[in-house]
Parts: sequence; structure tokens; C-alpha cells
Amino acid sequence: MTGADEPSSVGTGAAEAAENPHQNGVVSALDSPEFIAAEVSTRIDGFLTSKAAEFLAISPDADDIGQALLKFTRGGKKIRPVLLWWGFQLAGGDRSQGSLTGSVADAAGSLELLHAAALIHDDVIDHSDTRRGKPALHRQFESRHSQLRYQGGAEPFGVATAIVIGDICLALSEELFEKSQTILGITPLARELRATLRRDVMVGQYLDVLAEVVPLEDERIGERAWEVLSYKSAKYSVEQPLLLGAALGGADDDQLEEISRFGLPLGQAFQLRDDVLGVFGDPAATGKPAGDDIREGKRTVLIAESMKNLDPKQIRILAARLGNPNLSAAEVGECVDMLTDSGGLEAVESSIRGKHDEALSAVREWAREGSQSRTRIGPNAQKQLTRFAGALSFRKS
Amino acid sequence: MTGADEPSSVGTGAAEAAENPHQNGVVSALDSPEFIAAEVSTRIDGFLTSKAAEFLAISPDADDIGQALLKFTRGGKKIRPVLLWWGFQLAGGDRSQGSLTGSVADAAGSLELLHAAALIHDDVIDHSDTRRGKPALHRQFESRHSQLRYQGGAEPFGVATAIVIGDICLALSEELFEKSQTILGITPLARELRATLRRDVMVGQYLDVLAEVVPLEDERIGERAWEVLSYKSAKYSVEQPLLLGAALGGADDDQLEEISRFGLPLGQAFQLRDDVLGVFGDPAATGKPAGDDIREGKRTVLIAESMKNLDPKQIRILAARLGNPNLSAAEVGECVDMLTDSGGLEAVESSIRGKHDEALSAVREWAREGSQSRTRIGPNAQKQLTRFAGALSFRKS
Repeated sequence: MTGADEPSSVGTGAAEAAENPHQNGVVSALDSPEFIAAEVSTRIDGFLTSKAAEFLAISPDADDIGQALLKFTRGGKKIRPVLLWWGFQLAGGDRSQGSLTGSVADAAGSLELLHAAALIHDDVIDHSDTRRGKPALHRQFESRHSQLRYQGGAEPFGVATAIVIGDICLALSEELFEKSQTILGITPLARELRATLRRDVMVGQYLDVLAEVVPLEDERIGERAWEVLSYKSAKYSVEQPLLLGAALGGADDDQLEEISRFGLPLGQAFQLRDDVLGVFGDPAATGKPAGDDIREGKRTVLIAESMKNLDPKQIRILAARLGNPNLSAAEVGECVDMLTDSGGLEAVESSIRGKHDEALSAVREWAREGSQSRTRIGPNAQKQLTRFAGALSFRKS
Repeated sequence: MTGADEPSSVGTGAAEAAENPHQNGVVSALDSPEFIAAEVSTRIDGFLTSKAAEFLAISPDADDIGQALLKFTRGGKKIRPVLLWWGFQLAGGDRSQGSLTGSVADAAGSLELLHAAALIHDDVIDHSDTRRGKPALHRQFESRHSQLRYQGGAEPFGVATAIVIGDICLALSEELFEKSQTILGITPLARELRATLRRDVMVGQYLDVLAEVVPLEDERIGERAWEVLSYKSAKYSVEQPLLLGAALGGADDDQLEEISRFGLPLGQAFQLRDDVLGVFGDPAATGKPAGDDIREGKRTVLIAESMKNLDPKQIRILAARLGNPNLSAAEVGECVDMLTDSGGLEAVESSIRGKHDEALSAVREWAREGSQSRTRIGPNAQKQLTRFAGALSFRKS
């Protein structure tokens, strides 16, 4: 618990929007995603640097842990931190009062560390080779094993170190959140929301692992796909960061409910888009091979929707191919066609539009003159939320 | 955060000793390990049962998580909970005041959940088949995969689910600790100690993984063995539970230092004994095959001490055999003989006696009439600590 406790310097350039964010309880503008991402990155870097020094003090051998985490957490879109920050501002939290910027950034950064931990373990579970354009963490340590001519198997060494470093990252996420709380105030509501967020993504991950091994014809395929989508992603990536930020900003249960009306459907649209991109995304934009989700065997809502209109023969073919990493491009292509021809893709696109509209109608209500909602926003904030929602729902990568 | 918040019923039988534990600042007696283990088990069970209901509410598929954790956490020696509890009492904490029993049990139980999480991941890392006389968690899920004729590989499914369930167990450990804190009071010192404990075991685990792949002739073998012993076990299993409990019981830095003088050497003796049993233990008592640590390739202090007196040819033989799971009984036997003939075993036994004596001399000082130490104990408490220390240092299993 040393270092990096100074409040960050704020008030220039990108921060300007939030200098006077509240007028008569109306949030006129939110901090920009770029400003938030920069603040959060600075805090994470400072925190991990101090932790790396602690590890090094334990043993010279432990230095690699801190360095690996510093590298791993640089980059990424910082979606969850932005949403936590905005939740804080939407609930009337004013980071410029009492030099709260650093603590809000710590709380937001703690979600980024939780996410990093989840990705590190996810990549082990999915046997993924790359992450954010670099080798996955377990592959990095696997390579190091070979380069340094260590003994034993390189691959199990990569897996072992990635499991442990993921655990450490999870622990550091807790620690950074606790650090933020000493200044923001430890509210039971925030603690409960944080625990729920953490629980949901992990249970969602378990359900995802299970969904991939259950026979495709299982009657719960549709429910299961929605459970995975909601818990592993929609809630965890969008709704809950907003709610946690709002709780830290002073929201009560009623306001949290209002914010959910925006956050949950937007989170669902976000993940439905992810499912679409996982099959139909342009490899040049997504950085993943075409039809990647087919080879990985993901049981998405897209698959479940398509199943409704496939005949038994098609279902047998799809079942045999989902999760087979050695499919040819032609075999993947046939599966992709099935998802289009069955109307599955169109059903999901329609769902995305519906969820996106639902989210925006909540925002419109917050901006409507004479609205009785707790959350009140001005035209600039409305524009920011609308643009962000559009980017999540209709992104290309 | 529901259920299981009622203070446990206490005051009968085994609890009697602590009904009036403080006389003039002298701790006359500590609760018995049996009483503590029973209280902690009850709290963990209640907590996990309420969590299992939450998981089930998310999805019927998630029910297995809670059930697996309930089964996994039953049993075990509960050494860390007992030590946390005793630390609380040694610092003058009185659980009977303000119905603190349940909260002290929650704090203690949170260490047990942290330990369960570490074991679940440890067994994946070490490819262990059994834990506490039952199949390791990843093997349980591997078997289920086969029984239910799931798709894909059974072994990767076992690994994937064990990684996720270990993560969930880690998160639940945080949650149970937070729960205890709402009544015990959230002190910065306790939070810091908890973070240190969590960090040390994880960094120790990393160092352990690394130690097994570094060439045996590496010059840091001795330091490294002591680092692993201290961080992965001695501090985490003995010293830090005592310190955390003491902080919750109101100890200041000076008293924590006093308690370390007992806890750290005892923790070292505890792990040195573990190293000895890992090679020389009676399989009937330890439940592990003879020479298990040789086949696993553990780079213990016992190995490092033995290396000092082995000739280059012997070192080559040992280096080739350590970590080879397919050694014959005769090959293991030759290694075991080297550890004896080199004087390694005797050096470690001597170290254990020294560390054990060091721990007991701290306890004697606490019990000495006219002592100026913060920690003061009566003859009964001294007897309990002495007996427990002997059991840790000279146990057979």
C-alpha cells in the first residue's frame, strides 16, 4: 500500500468538460473516454510499478510477474473503466471535489485488472495463442521457458505461470479497489455490487465452458446462450461497471434501476455484436481468423437462433464441426452460410437493434425536459452516451 | 450477502475455556482447535450454501459450482483458521463480547477458502490426482465429463472448470473476509495484512513453479528454496494467520512483531517438516507415495542442503531424476539415500529443532512472570501453544 497515492493532476484539455458538470442536478457533460482511459492507465501503471517493486523485494525471480502484468495491462479499450467513471458522474459524483479523480481512477482501474485476470485465465482455458495482437501470457512464458532452456515441458510451464499470474492479477484488482475505497468511502452497496460483478463474470465463464461441451441438440441451448451472454459479458462489461460507478457516486436503488435500463440492454447488444463479429467479422479489422467462433465451438445466441430453422441433417453437420479447430475454410464457410440462410444472423441483428433502441430510450428519458427521473443529463452528455452506445452495438472490431 | 449472519451459539463444552479468557491482561486459555474448527466449518458451510443458492438462481447449470466447493472445503486440518483465531485471542480480542464469534469464524473461514482456492489451482499446476483422499477437483470434473458423455476432451474440461472454480473460491474468500469486517471493523492494518498474506502465497507459488524448472546446479538454489518455503508456506500458513487475527483483535505493530517471533520460525519448522515428510514420510500416514517430492521435482531446502555435500556425479544423477514421474522405486530409493548420506536430512532436522526452539522461547517469554511483553499468557495457554507447535514441527503426516 505504498506510493501512487497523490491525486492526479486534472483540469486541462480533455478534462475541461467535467470541470462544472452539474447544473441544477443536470449532468451537462461527461469526461471523454480518452481522458478517462489515460487517467486510468496512469493509475494502473503507478500501482503495478509499486507492486512490481514489492515482488522484486521478495525475490529477484519474482520480478517477471510485475513486468508481465505491466505489459499486459497496457492497451485495451478500457470500456469498463469508462463506464464505471460515467456511472459515477451520472449519479452526481463530482471527481473534482475533494480530489477524487485518483480514487475514481483506481476503482475503474480495478475493473481493468479484474478483466486482465479473466483474460489471462480465459486464454489458458481456450488455448488461445494471441491477445491484443501479442502472444497470450501463457505463450509468452512458454517461449521464455524454451529460450532460457529451462527443464521440463515448456507448455505446462506456460500454463502454470499464467494460472498463478492470473491469480495475482485478481488479488491486485481487489487491492486497487480497496485502495480507492479508503477515499471514496466503503459503502456496503458498492461492496455488494463489486462482489456481484466478480461473481457473475466467473459464473458466466463456468457456464461458457460447460455450454461448449453439452450436445448441440440440448433443449436448454437457447437459455444457456442467453445466460452466458448476460453473465459473462452483458452485465459484467457494461451494466455492472455503470452501477458500481453510480453507487460510488451516491446513487440509491431507484437510480441504479434507471441506469440498468440503459446498461443491461446495451450490454446485451454489445455481446450480441461480439457474437456476430466472431463469425462474420472482417479478419483485417477483428484480428481474428474468419469464422473463429465456429472453430472454437462457442455456443452463442447466434447459433441458438440459427438452430431454430435448421433441418436435422444441417444440425448434425453443424454439431460435428463446432469446436473442431481443424476445419477447412470451405467447411467453415458452409457453417457461416447456414447461420445466414437460417435467418439466425438477421434475428440477432434485429435483436441488437432492439436492445440498442431500448438503451437509447432510457437515455432520452434522462435528457427529456420535465422528466422525473433521478438521472438528468444535458444535450452534450446525451450525445456522448448515444455515440458510445452506437460504437458498442455497431462496431466493426 | 444473505443468510448465516446470526451469531453462532457458543458457551458449552469446548468453548468453556475462553469464557473468561482475560485476567489482568493475561490470556489464561485459548479456544481449543476442535472448537475452532467446528465453528469455522459451520460458518463456511452456511456461507457456501447461501452462495450455492445464488449460483443456482443464475442457472441450473451453475449448481455444480457450489456443490463442488461445499464438498471440497469439508475436511482439512483448519490450521490457518485456528492460528487466526488464536492471534485474535493473544492480542486480547474477546469473541464473547458483542457476539463476535461468528465474525471471527468468518475471518478465519476466509483463510480456509483462500487455501482451498490455492489447492485447487495447485493441483492443476502439479497435475495431482488426489487431494485429501479424494480425486482432485479437476479430476472430478474430468470424470463427470466422461460419465455424462460431454463433447470434446475430458481432461481440458477438468482443467478449465478447476481454473474457474478456483477463481470463484478466491472471490468467495474475499467476500467472506469482507463480511467479517462489517462487524469486526475494517481496519487498514488488517486489510494490509490480508493483502500481504494473499500476495505472499501467490508469489511463493510462482517461485515454486520457477524453482522446478531452473537447473539444479543454479547458484541460487539455496536462497530460492528458502524463498519458496517462507513465502508459499511459512508466512502464509502460520505467521500471517496469527498476525491477521492479532490485528483484528487490536494488536499494534509492536505486538505483531512479538507474535512474528513465534509465528515465523514455527512456520519454517512446519514447512521444513513438510519437506522431510515429502521424501521420508510413511505412505500409510501421509497418504502420498514414498519419495513423492522426488518424482514431483520439488526443490526444497532438503535438496539444497544435500547438494552441499554431493559430488558432481551424484548431482548429475539427482538432477536427472528430480521431476521424473516415471522413476522406479529403486531409483527413488537411491535419491533418498543421497539425501540421508549427504547429511541433508540431518541438517534439516537440526534446522527444525532450532526453529521450533526459537518459537517456543517466544512463548516462554509471554508466559514469564514479570515479562514486559505485550502478549501475556497463563500456563494453560502456554501449554496449548507448546502442544500445537510440537504437532506442527514433529508431525508424522
